[in-house]
Amino acid sequence: MTREQLFENIRRKQSFLCVGLDTDLKKVPPLLLERAEREEGFDPIFEFNKAIIDATAPYCIAYKPNLAFYEAHGVKGWIAFEKTVQYLNDNYPDQFIIADAKRGDIGNTSKLYARTFFEEMNVDAVTVAPYMGEDSVTPFLGYPGKWVILLALTSNKGSQDFQIMQTHPQTPPVMEGSELRAETEKPIQLFERVILRSQEWEKNASPNGEVGGLLMYVVGATQGSAFADIRRLAPDHFLLVPGIGAQGGSLEDVCRYGWNDHCGLIVNSSRAIIYADSTERFAEVAAERAHEVQQQMAAILEAHNL
Amino acid sequence: MTREQLFENIRRKQSFLCVGLDTDLKKVPPLLLERAEREEGFDPIFEFNKAIIDATAPYCIAYKPNLAFYEAHGVKGWIAFEKTVQYLNDNYPDQFIIADAKRGDIGNTSKLYARTFFEEMNVDAVTVAPYMGEDSVTPFLGYPGKWVILLALTSNKGSQDFQIMQTHPQTPPVMEGSELRAETEKPIQLFERVILRSQEWEKNASPNGEVGGLLMYVVGATQGSAFADIRRLAPDHFLLVPGIGAQGGSLEDVCRYGWNDHCGLIVNSSRAIIYADSTERFAEVAAERAHEVQQQMAAILEAHNL
Repeated sequence: MTREQLFENIRRKQSFLCVGLDTDLKKVPPLLLERAEREEGFDPIFEFNKAIIDATAPYCIAYKPNLAFYEAHGVKGWIAFEKTVQYLNDNYPDQFIIADAKRGDIGNTSKLYARTFFEEMNVDAVTVAPYMGEDSVTPFLGYPGKWVILLALTSNKGSQDFQIMQTHPQTPPVMEGSELRAETEKPIQLFERVILRSQEWEKNASPNGEVGGLLMYVVGATQGSAFADIRRLAPDHFLLVPGIGAQGGSLEDVCRYGWNDHCGLIVNSSRAIIYADSTERFAEVAAERAHEVQQQMAAILEAHNL
Repeated sequence: MTREQLFENIRRKQSFLCVGLDTDLKKVPPLLLERAEREEGFDPIFEFNKAIIDATAPYCIAYKPNLAFYEAHGVKGWIAFEKTVQYLNDNYPDQFIIADAKRGDIGNTSKLYARTFFEEMNVDAVTVAPYMGEDSVTPFLGYPGKWVILLALTSNKGSQDFQIMQTHPQTPPVMEGSELRAETEKPIQLFERVILRSQEWEKNASPNGEVGGLLMYVVGATQGSAFADIRRLAPDHFLLVPGIGAQGGSLEDVCRYGWNDHCGLIVNSSRAIIYADSTERFAEVAAERAHEVQQQMAAILEAHNL
């Protein structure tokens, strides 16, 4: 999905909501588990996802299954994950599918991961960890219409351990000819350096040398005014924002500091939507919650004339 | 597996070799693919691994399947991975099994990954990425006899992008009461800070408050004298060392700079061993290569009176 298509979906649906499919058998409605005991071949993970997707699709523009929840069930989990992605591709081709995998390995291995997620699975985006640097990220940047969502400043407490560290300027200086070059020559925080360096990689990978069309950043909703710093360094990029709802971030703050002229935000909510109810009404209640968030988003979009 | 058992295996087998099971259907001997076409249910990934394991087990103390290679084949790959781990646990209980997964997510999600790999799969160790900080790593530290192998200074070119950056001291100061505290108060490289901080986490998680029994570090064989810096900061920890063979690192250099009094090294080789031959003699030739490396290792162990 291109940046323009994504923006178009946001305007059309008046939503920038991503529903996180963190599907945990300990939390799905008991009725699904009971049915799985009675009916051979009934896949409670996939059936939960399917019901949630059918109910919430009008109110969101993206789905984000976190791979950890699927791997936790081994082979069965992978089957459920693949069926979920297939179901989305077949029935909701306008939904942006994010494999929240946080992968990243040496070049050859990242190449394999990229092939798996983009060619075999046909997801639109993969979350990637930056610690291993350029050759761990660039293999994911070689697919037009597919996206790397790079961890920058995450929503968890541990984001304070390394991501916010002041780092010294690099030798040799980078960002030749860029107006942001001065930024790289003074001490800045690690996540800022990740954002600056990765834009060079994106530029090199992009057919037209532009940025913002292959790369997004993960920025936790709990990071408040740090969004303003990020917008200075990455004015045009979409940000994937987890952490509203259960993790305590505020949609208002995120929009106050993180907005750009094409919205520029994909805000994720998982638990607060998908586990809002555990009776036979679970999908209906999930839809209600998603609708509430969508309405807040519509008001914000309208206030920005989008 | 405890640190003492691992050390005992190294002395008994006179080897600190780990064989990397980076099993790629494009590189396995064609005869296995032909057989898979003829025989229903013949799993070429697992059969390749099984043959390699049976042939090389006398010469190594660990196996390291890299998950990327298995995920690349989706559900089939996961089945092959699970069968491989099961086969090792059933037939070679003295082999140390490393799931090279490079995982790391917010606390709750890392907890799930830890449960998956340690309880469901029963591997001995998982490689973990440090970018997301404490709560992304500590869930893996709660299993006595199981190990986190944290990315510190990796073997790839991209290790030069962020890992070696000079970082400023943290506020507030850390490592209360540690003799290494002074280290945290001056500018040091990011990978050094990862090593220092993570030892605090390990200390907190360790029943006896000691370090070196739950945590190891990934340090690429291509990093040469940086091993000496790492040994200063982590004198007792095992290091998992990828990058000899195809990636160009030298076993001699690694041992010169990285040795400690209980060896302290697990040196991985993947491609140079498992793809040494692609005829029906592939397993035999893999064994020869593994044996050659083991003999070099035996000489080094002997020189250190181990």
